[in-house]
Amino acid sequence: MSQLQLVIGNKNFSSWSLRAWLAMELSGAAFEEVSIPLYTPNSRALLKAQSPTGKVPVLKLAEGTIWDSLAIVEYLAEAYPDAGLWPTDTLARAHARALCAEMHSGFLALRRELPMDLRRRQRLKSTTAEAVEDIQRIQRLWRECRERYGLQGPYLFGTPTIADAFYAPVASRFRSYGVELSAEAAAYVETIYAWPAFQRWLAEAETEEQSA
Amino acid sequence: MSQLQLVIGNKNFSSWSLRAWLAMELSGAAFEEVSIPLYTPNSRALLKAQSPTGKVPVLKLAEGTIWDSLAIVEYLAEAYPDAGLWPTDTLARAHARALCAEMHSGFLALRRELPMDLRRRQRLKSTTAEAVEDIQRIQRLWRECRERYGLQGPYLFGTPTIADAFYAPVASRFRSYGVELSAEAAAYVETIYAWPAFQRWLAEAETEEQSA
Repeated sequence: MSQLQLVIGNKNFSSWSLRAWLAMELSGAAFEEVSIPLYTPNSRALLKAQSPTGKVPVLKLAEGTIWDSLAIVEYLAEAYPDAGLWPTDTLARAHARALCAEMHSGFLALRRELPMDLRRRQRLKSTTAEAVEDIQRIQRLWRECRERYGLQGPYLFGTPTIADAFYAPVASRFRSYGVELSAEAAAYVETIYAWPAFQRWLAEAETEEQSA
Repeated sequence: MSQLQLVIGNKNFSSWSLRAWLAMELSGAAFEEVSIPLYTPNSRALLKAQSPTGKVPVLKLAEGTIWDSLAIVEYLAEAYPDAGLWPTDTLARAHARALCAEMHSGFLALRRELPMDLRRRQRLKSTTAEAVEDIQRIQRLWRECRERYGLQGPYLFGTPTIADAFYAPVASRFRSYGVELSAEAAAYVETIYAWPAFQRWLAEAETEEQSA
């Protein structure tokens, strides 16, 4: 077995898998993917066998299993310190972590009403006020980053970091559901869709078993 | 103004404030507390003025504001590297972060049905199956830590770390609501109640304005 195994769900639907996978790609680590098809009668048993929470992603090391995407990305940032997974400036790094933590526990209306579905291209008929608030808040977060770090590159903190890994699934939702965006937010969605690592995942999402 | 200000809610009720505050205490940093009484007509305006998410805790530095408890504790762990906020062993640290991340986004039934209320001492009449599952999962997490790191001290990873800061409010819920626990879990609740930093917070929770 490879030294590192990342256990993930369907590429089209599993936004948390995408986040961890993008961070793996950023780290440059060699790793093996273990895919568990979600939404099948066997999914629960397969998940329970691979993951202590029954959720993906999990990262398997020779020495043990790390569950939860935030713990995975922090492990990678420590293990690959030269890969720039977090911004190098202390305050920018704290800012990036705040963005990721807010994504990790928040935006529940957005996540419920606009679940990630990479192949989808269809506008939503209606959105609750809570989801609209989430969408506005995310655009504000992106704008603040772009205003502060924009000279360093097109990603949230200039070069790609874990923060982009965490918001890439949101960019995809905005595109899939035809969400109207500010010009800056639309430009950031373009940045994500032009990110080579994201494009690789997307290509695989488009060809994976549609029944899964 | 002091270099560091921690903006928190009511000590009796605000579990996320307690988590960040315990991590501040672990760090040894000098800091000032800014309290916002929650559940009053003015709370929302006061929160919005102090916090970009309208939530507590936030940590204010001279250079900017860090929101979300996870980003706060990661900042502290970096800024006070000798304080042992995370376990020193790489895998133990990944394990501790997984516990904290799971707390950060999970145990929603427990959090909804048994909200932190430090002054309370009254058993719940009934609990949903989801909350029971959360309670079991937490006891399993604690047991695994105690089995692995128990020789190093009575806290989850031996000495007190951010993981204890994150689970201290859970220990308090178990006591407040009279939850039946395994012997190991009950012993860990005792450890939290014997933790001097926790006792200081608790004493202040017991005397703060009850109307707030």
